Amino acid sequence: MAILALAVLGHGIVDPSTAVIHADDLGVTRGDGCFEGLRVRRVPTNEATGTTTVETVDLTAHLRRMAHSADGLGIGFDEAAWRHLVLELADEWAAGYPGQDEAAMKLVLTRGRPGLEQPTGFGTVSDPPADIDTRRQDGIDVVTLSRGTSDDSFSDAPWLLGGVKTLSYVINMAAQREAASRGAHEALFVTVDGSLLEAPTASVVWASGRTLRTVADGVGNGILHSITVDTLFKRAAEGGWTTISGHGQVEDLFDADVAMLVSSGFGPLRIRSLDGKPLPATPAGAESLAACRRFTDFPQA
Amino acid sequence: MAILALAVLGHGIVDPSTAVIHADDLGVTRGDGCFEGLRVRRVPTNEATGTTTVETVDLTAHLRRMAHSADGLGIGFDEAAWRHLVLELADEWAAGYPGQDEAAMKLVLTRGRPGLEQPTGFGTVSDPPADIDTRRQDGIDVVTLSRGTSDDSFSDAPWLLGGVKTLSYVINMAAQREAASRGAHEALFVTVDGSLLEAPTASVVWASGRTLRTVADGVGNGILHSITVDTLFKRAAEGGWTTISGHGQVEDLFDADVAMLVSSGFGPLRIRSLDGKPLPATPAGAESLAACRRFTDFPQA
Repeated sequence: MAILALAVLGHGIVDPSTAVIHADDLGVTRGDGCFEGLRVRRVPTNEATGTTTVETVDLTAHLRRMAHSADGLGIGFDEAAWRHLVLELADEWAAGYPGQDEAAMKLVLTRGRPGLEQPTGFGTVSDPPADIDTRRQDGIDVVTLSRGTSDDSFSDAPWLLGGVKTLSYVINMAAQREAASRGAHEALFVTVDGSLLEAPTASVVWASGRTLRTVADGVGNGILHSITVDTLFKRAAEGGWTTISGHGQVEDLFDADVAMLVSSGFGPLRIRSLDGKPLPATPAGAESLAACRRFTDFPQA
Repeated sequence: MAILALAVLGHGIVDPSTAVIHADDLGVTRGDGCFEGLRVRRVPTNEATGTTTVETVDLTAHLRRMAHSADGLGIGFDEAAWRHLVLELADEWAAGYPGQDEAAMKLVLTRGRPGLEQPTGFGTVSDPPADIDTRRQDGIDVVTLSRGTSDDSFSDAPWLLGGVKTLSYVINMAAQREAASRGAHEALFVTVDGSLLEAPTASVVWASGRTLRTVADGVGNGILHSITVDTLFKRAAEGGWTTISGHGQVEDLFDADVAMLVSSGFGPLRIRSLDGKPLPATPAGAESLAACRRFTDFPQA
């Protein structure tokens, strides 16, 4: 989990062991900022010569969401500067770790230090999560946890920052620890009325036949817009599938062929049990999971 | 707002211009940690010789609440080490800024860096807020904002971290910006049903006759336990007042002699208007405000 490469906005590449944040930065004292996580991977450009290039997956969409988050927080966002930082960082990783095919990039923007009127920005590249192969292969056990809000808590309340990917993720982290303490891999947030929301760092998708469903964002429930689900739904639609962003209940996941948590780091992971009860494992579900992995360029297991 | 003194847990005093936090510290990437803010002030020990000492106001109570927060997050808390850091920090400020009578101390504990299993801790001393005198003298305009939750959203849901003073304050900061955009000084959170909760960085107290009321914490509404209100209620009770921690509605603040926001930084501030409507300004209210300032050792204006 060490930092493999580090770049600071306005400074460029710095030694990964450098402390780069001041004690009064509002990113740390108030969790006041936003972030993006994306996958970087080495892809062949010429099979014959073995040359490769580095792909920053869905970079434009991630920068667009980061701009949206920064706008929601009233923090300036210089897209060109961030794009430059990302490419520098990807090159630094590619040169320094030639044996590694895939890694995790994180981009962080904070309001900066009080009185300076200048945001703090940096990006890191780290190893992918250690348990990624097991989760892809075996699926995951998930528990539902209340988010304490309802389907319209965030309507007309922009200060609650619905849909803004802020640095204030402490409840998401606590929910993951609660899930672990119950013997599960992940949590899935639900409203106080039991409607599906999202996982702490992933979105929920479920398939029935050739129809994919997810929970709609931007409708007052506060959940994030998922870039990986966007890609999934776009490519699925191109492949003739029906895709629906709407409303869901916990029972819907039991009735589906397969239910998944989807994130840019892990891709689609099958939920094999929910609140201790196994979810159906059918050939149709296995086919849908495989299709979702193809649509999002993730390996099958 | 510059840092006047800085100390790092396990290292002691460092130059205030030092960057002390790494890019992957979970305090910044996830807002995963907790904090305390307290007042440090110079108090005379001998009027004749003019000698003074530095008081860290309610330090024991702040360290107790920080231990509670750390416990809620599952982060280790070494009270003796923190007490040592606080005293070093107070001395550093007192020696470096002999002309300053009062300052703001902040203590921050994060989960640290992934894989290191070692929390990050540091403390800062900064100037008190610039507008403190105006707010004490003139009172403040406040707007109510929904917190998106209800009075029992946090019951039986420890992962929502009710009562834990975490670093994930981005919504509190956004609420303060929303208040400012409406021409007010501060926000006051209410439930989706309009029950009173707390302000982003203060608690609400209202007085009718010789009765003080506040919103009860630890009852499922998620609000923080206020150390300054504790002190206020303890001393008020000793002075023969009745104190009630319970439930309140917005209308109650209009019916009271005086309504206040109370914090360790500002002490009791009179709410002079709520959602654009003036609150009553009566001699009884002025007397209650003055009493609350005496009980908490804050200047009258």
